[in-house]
Amino acid sequence: MAGREAAKNALRAQEIELPSWAFGNSGTRFKVFAQQGVPRDPFEKIADAARVHAHTGVAPSVALHIPWDAVDDYGALGRAAADAGIRLGTVNANVFQDDDYRLGSVTNPDPAVRRKALDHLFACVDIMDRTGSRDLKLWFSDGTNYPGQDDIRARQDRLAEALAAVYERLSGEQRLILEYKLFEPAFYTTDVPDWGTAYAHCLRLGERAKVCVDTGHHAPGTNIEFIVAFLLREGKLGAFDFNSRFYADDDLIVGAADPFQLFRILFEVRTAGGLAAEAGIAFMLDQCHNIEPKIPGQIRSVMNVQEATAKALLVDTDALAAAQAAGDVLGANGVLMDAYNTDVRPLLAELREEMGLDPDPMAAYARSGYGERIAAERVGGRQAGWGA
Amino acid sequence: MAGREAAKNALRAQEIELPSWAFGNSGTRFKVFAQQGVPRDPFEKIADAARVHAHTGVAPSVALHIPWDAVDDYGALGRAAADAGIRLGTVNANVFQDDDYRLGSVTNPDPAVRRKALDHLFACVDIMDRTGSRDLKLWFSDGTNYPGQDDIRARQDRLAEALAAVYERLSGEQRLILEYKLFEPAFYTTDVPDWGTAYAHCLRLGERAKVCVDTGHHAPGTNIEFIVAFLLREGKLGAFDFNSRFYADDDLIVGAADPFQLFRILFEVRTAGGLAAEAGIAFMLDQCHNIEPKIPGQIRSVMNVQEATAKALLVDTDALAAAQAAGDVLGANGVLMDAYNTDVRPLLAELREEMGLDPDPMAAYARSGYGERIAAERVGGRQAGWGA
Amino acid sequence: MAGREAAKNALRAQEIELPSWAFGNSGTRFKVFAQQGVPRDPFEKIADAARVHAHTGVAPSVALHIPWDAVDDYGALGRAAADAGIRLGTVNANVFQDDDYRLGSVTNPDPAVRRKALDHLFACVDIMDRTGSRDLKLWFSDGTNYPGQDDIRARQDRLAEALAAVYERLSGEQRLILEYKLFEPAFYTTDVPDWGTAYAHCLRLGERAKVCVDTGHHAPGTNIEFIVAFLLREGKLGAFDFNSRFYADDDLIVGAADPFQLFRILFEVRTAGGLAAEAGIAFMLDQCHNIEPKIPGQIRSVMNVQEATAKALLVDTDALAAAQAAGDVLGANGVLMDAYNTDVRPLLAELREEMGLDPDPMAAYARSGYGERIAAERVGGRQAGWGA
Amino acid sequence: MAGREAAKNALRAQEIELPSWAFGNSGTRFKVFAQQGVPRDPFEKIADAARVHAHTGVAPSVALHIPWDAVDDYGALGRAAADAGIRLGTVNANVFQDDDYRLGSVTNPDPAVRRKALDHLFACVDIMDRTGSRDLKLWFSDGTNYPGQDDIRARQDRLAEALAAVYERLSGEQRLILEYKLFEPAFYTTDVPDWGTAYAHCLRLGERAKVCVDTGHHAPGTNIEFIVAFLLREGKLGAFDFNSRFYADDDLIVGAADPFQLFRILFEVRTAGGLAAEAGIAFMLDQCHNIEPKIPGQIRSVMNVQEATAKALLVDTDALAAAQAAGDVLGANGVLMDAYNTDVRPLLAELREEMGLDPDPMAAYARSGYGERIAAERVGGRQAGWGA
Repeated sequence: MAGREAAKNALRAQEIELPSWAFGNSGTRFKVFAQQGVPRDPFEKIADAARVHAHTGVAPSVALHIPWDAVDDYGALGRAAADAGIRLGTVNANVFQDDDYRLGSVTNPDPAVRRKALDHLFACVDIMDRTGSRDLKLWFSDGTNYPGQDDIRARQDRLAEALAAVYERLSGEQRLILEYKLFEPAFYTTDVPDWGTAYAHCLRLGERAKVCVDTGHHAPGTNIEFIVAFLLREGKLGAFDFNSRFYADDDLIVGAADPFQLFRILFEVRTAGGLAAEAGIAFMLDQCHNIEPKIPGQIRSVMNVQEATAKALLVDTDALAAAQAAGDVLGANGVLMDAYNTDVRPLLAELREEMGLDPDPMAAYARSGYGERIAAERVGGRQAGWGA
Repeated sequence: MAGREAAKNALRAQEIELPSWAFGNSGTRFKVFAQQGVPRDPFEKIADAARVHAHTGVAPSVALHIPWDAVDDYGALGRAAADAGIRLGTVNANVFQDDDYRLGSVTNPDPAVRRKALDHLFACVDIMDRTGSRDLKLWFSDGTNYPGQDDIRARQDRLAEALAAVYERLSGEQRLILEYKLFEPAFYTTDVPDWGTAYAHCLRLGERAKVCVDTGHHAPGTNIEFIVAFLLREGKLGAFDFNSRFYADDDLIVGAADPFQLFRILFEVRTAGGLAAEAGIAFMLDQCHNIEPKIPGQIRSVMNVQEATAKALLVDTDALAAAQAAGDVLGANGVLMDAYNTDVRPLLAELREEMGLDPDPMAAYARSGYGERIAAERVGGRQAGWGA
Repeated sequence: MAGREAAKNALRAQEIELPSWAFGNSGTRFKVFAQQGVPRDPFEKIADAARVHAHTGVAPSVALHIPWDAVDDYGALGRAAADAGIRLGTVNANVFQDDDYRLGSVTNPDPAVRRKALDHLFACVDIMDRTGSRDLKLWFSDGTNYPGQDDIRARQDRLAEALAAVYERLSGEQRLILEYKLFEPAFYTTDVPDWGTAYAHCLRLGERAKVCVDTGHHAPGTNIEFIVAFLLREGKLGAFDFNSRFYADDDLIVGAADPFQLFRILFEVRTAGGLAAEAGIAFMLDQCHNIEPKIPGQIRSVMNVQEATAKALLVDTDALAAAQAAGDVLGANGVLMDAYNTDVRPLLAELREEMGLDPDPMAAYARSGYGERIAAERVGGRQAGWGA
Repeated sequence: MAGREAAKNALRAQEIELPSWAFGNSGTRFKVFAQQGVPRDPFEKIADAARVHAHTGVAPSVALHIPWDAVDDYGALGRAAADAGIRLGTVNANVFQDDDYRLGSVTNPDPAVRRKALDHLFACVDIMDRTGSRDLKLWFSDGTNYPGQDDIRARQDRLAEALAAVYERLSGEQRLILEYKLFEPAFYTTDVPDWGTAYAHCLRLGERAKVCVDTGHHAPGTNIEFIVAFLLREGKLGAFDFNSRFYADDDLIVGAADPFQLFRILFEVRTAGGLAAEAGIAFMLDQCHNIEPKIPGQIRSVMNVQEATAKALLVDTDALAAAQAAGDVLGANGVLMDAYNTDVRPLLAELREEMGLDPDPMAAYARSGYGERIAAERVGGRQAGWGA
């Protein structure tokens, strides 16, 4: 079956970026449960990320979070990654964990705080220059908790000003990726709460400003694949932050809460040509493994994205288009569901074997003893923590 | 107090448009409860709308819904309105109540249906030419019920094409007002589900394409005043469809479910200068009086908008700005709440008396006997029904 | 594999009740799209329901809705069903479509209206006596639209009084099944809005009062399988009304919006022994085929329930219990997902062949020409309409 | 006006309990912003709580959280409270901040962890014996993050067992107050997610087991006043945890997000006689002052509850009942809104003066210099932190 081979080729080319922070401890406001073997510095995070790639073959890069992953020598960090078989990816700025940011960072009413936040963003671009990263991902926790607390429009003005300054600072191939989020940690207004706001700002900035869709950052009932399709049509989808949620921004393993939704999202990506490298869509994970072990959690996440992608690739688009054109509601839905209901695990196992990998990454990792090794070795020091 | 006089002046100038359909019977999918005295034709609707204006003094126009309000002679309809002391306002197109629109109107996969829908939209512009209406309001029920049913992007292409054709057809002063809605009657995708989609289309169309914010058309948790502030900042807010909701698009009396939200929305309008006539914001009601009497329901709605506007006007913006600049969270919130907690009914009663009106419109209407009169007179014929 | 045979046996024994109203026209408040071949009386509905059973083999009963399905001779209706190979099932009362019910039925402030509603409920029990139905299903649209409109507690008193009267009227084997719904058509309070309310009333009534879980009647984010598990543990789950939704009570084909959720629900049913006939759980469909053809819509729905049930039956409960006891989060989740990711369509095809059915019910129905036949024959008369 | 005096009497008798933890630092998972002058031990928390009472006159008790407020000598703590003019109130257990509770406390699959949690609950009862507290408030963060992770029913069995053991341990006048919460920190199932679950467990436990309604713990769209009215009718409402939210469990100042909702809740309490001391309803605040100063935040919260209560007391219940009985939808709503729209601040100022207090508690606190004093004095040591 031709479709099957084409699917395998697309799956072989797929790249899923891992977040360095997924390997550190994370939690809720109520409690961060510490785990054994957690990395104590960026180099150990990279080692763990490389391990995920070693078992899955499709996770060849790791995103950094600054200042969590700040090091003196980014060349050394990049070499460590290369030695481990992966590369450094997106740089994520962090302007939400300083006491000065209590009322916001780039939208803070105080110009001195805004300046401080902007300086951090510039520093992130400096790091990109050194790591060779293409993307600067910006998520702002900025917003307000109480009606009247600050001026909604004035904050947009300040935001626009900061974004323009950062965009201006980027060099030729670098991109600004703007993330939106409905709420949390701000509980009344958020300065970039939805895709429309991110889109409008990116439009004004220019070609290399794109929107990041975090799958957990929407209001209940939001149709995410619609947003994905719309942004793709507009050429403004830059990246995904994959995770899943039942309630708010739960940051669970992608595909764990609603695998059908993940499939629908990836189907829109596929049909818009978004799986091709030249489309420039970054597929990143952004999750918190609060109670489950982190490396297997990442492996499972990568596999879940692969499975959803495989199903999306198996949709018979000719049959679908024909049913749609005929107004055959049940028929068209049936074509889509036919792919979704297919068990793609054998296909992926086959692909892994062709790639020289164990067909069962979870079992292979469990057998590897890596988890026990790091638990034994990484004792003492300060475990890496987390923020988003 | 200067603020009080300025508030009264702004309130005196405020105009709230009534929807002709609010006077007809409406209901849910489960049941439409018929009421006595309901209009049987557009002329009787205009008479009822005029009655609302007679008691409130700030509802001088009535929006039409085509084909519900289609008549042979729009000149006559306009004259009837003028004789009753009001004028014809926005023209609302209806491309959702024909069997042909089962799978959509302007986004239908069938080009013949799309053509039919477009012809209706053109016909609405023809009516505008005759009524002298400034605004064409477009709400599309278009969407899909099942994943795969139709191509999300293809539907956007069709939508863009139709909108461009309609926009092109408008003459110099006429505007296209695009309304968005999260869901219903479509239950999987809606082709214009959120402000971002409406905004992006309007941006492409041009200056005289604007977004309509229906206060009941959002996902749970959406911060509507943020959207309002954002659209005002972008010069893209064209109109409000006021109503209120506890759950979905409940279409209850505006201000009945969350009067504080209505106040916050109107505060954003006020501070952006949106209350001024030259801002071009149309303040419309769009409600269903399913179980309550319709004319008093409209009077109460107009009063609720007035009360929220009055409170918004009483906010001490200098004190607010100072507290915001100082980062005084509780202080700034307190300034806003101070206005909200004010009882503005005496001020509005005073204003009405200055305008030669009864200070209590509800009581005045009840005393007028109009309700009893129409119940007695409007017997036989077919009561006006409803759609949205 | 033993599990596979056990699964087939359970699937062979499963019975899914069809709603007579699914074969009539339905729609939203905006529009009811008429379809060809729609039944014009209860006998034609039964013929259509029998057709669904003929192709699926697991839909041997049809629920009635009174007064929509009221006939002079229920014996004749029962014989028609028997002749077609099915039987009459649950009786659904309707106290929401009379003008008198504008402010409620059994909770109406007017005692005369309450009496009328109660008389209807008694009449439904009379019909049960004649049809031999076990279950009386009660869904009340009662509630209020505006704060203050009525007294919340007084309405509960009236509700309790009516339920007690109906329960008293039931004979030995008959059951009262109380359905809850968050909202619609009431938009402020609903008198039975959640499972807790239904449960509390049923507890007071007695053993044969049970709760009905309609899968579309919850607030966003509600964990339905938790409710199912809880009610099963309490012996208070009486029935399901299956359908699916993306937003509110969308009444889409069950399993169409979130097949993973349906699987999780059925897994709770399975592990609590709820699939056994003696558990007394009625599995009913309650859907609206607004834009898709009705008979294939019902066939697809039955198949979706079967597929979710099959997956639930394939869960390796021993492995699951072991992983749960060990606190192995990813392992336990993996056991569940392993079953969910299995393609059970071959197993169901095999089962159908063993039952003497076509392995592909959708294709078999399409080939049968039944749809074309009823479209040709059922011309004239008044098509069956719908309410819920 | 008689109603006015009756209202003042009820307001004079109202008691609002403060949470000791509101005076410590709190935050989101992203960041806890430290504030100056924050208490460093339970005695300093009590001093701050007493300050709130000194300015408001209606906050005479403070709830403890164990182990946050564990001290060696509860007699000394009680005396410190008495000396400051207040008393110790509800004891809140904490079984969510130990690494052992990663997979739950009383519902943990591991019996040793369950035993540990139960021991803590017993220890809390011991503390109650010493503090003379009436209420033990139990909130369990227990739940699961992934489908399959644990057995929903088995966890209910464990929960029931633990609750029975604790209830058994209580002495004659002590009460068990069970709190429910939709989600967070558990993201798939929560073991006590809704009022129905809490109610069912309390029913089984006995008379002195009651439900706590935290106003921020519901699914979007939940009608909280309905739950309040229902629990009051059943005699099962034990306490409120007041706060407010726009999205999830935002824990903002009560009345800040939806003052109209707070009014509706308190109206149900009032009409059910719940304001009387003998009704045994504990009115507690449970909030996080993440970005605003804590003592003024608590003062504002107390005032917001007072204002909503005052409005609820001003509702003309005779007129309301008459309009309800007449089926006058707009009239009945109008009676309610008439009270809500009243500015009750003058009445409360008058009441405070009668009670020998400054009519403006916020201004009086600001003038008092207390905030500056604690900021200067409380330097060094470890600031009190927070958990819920």
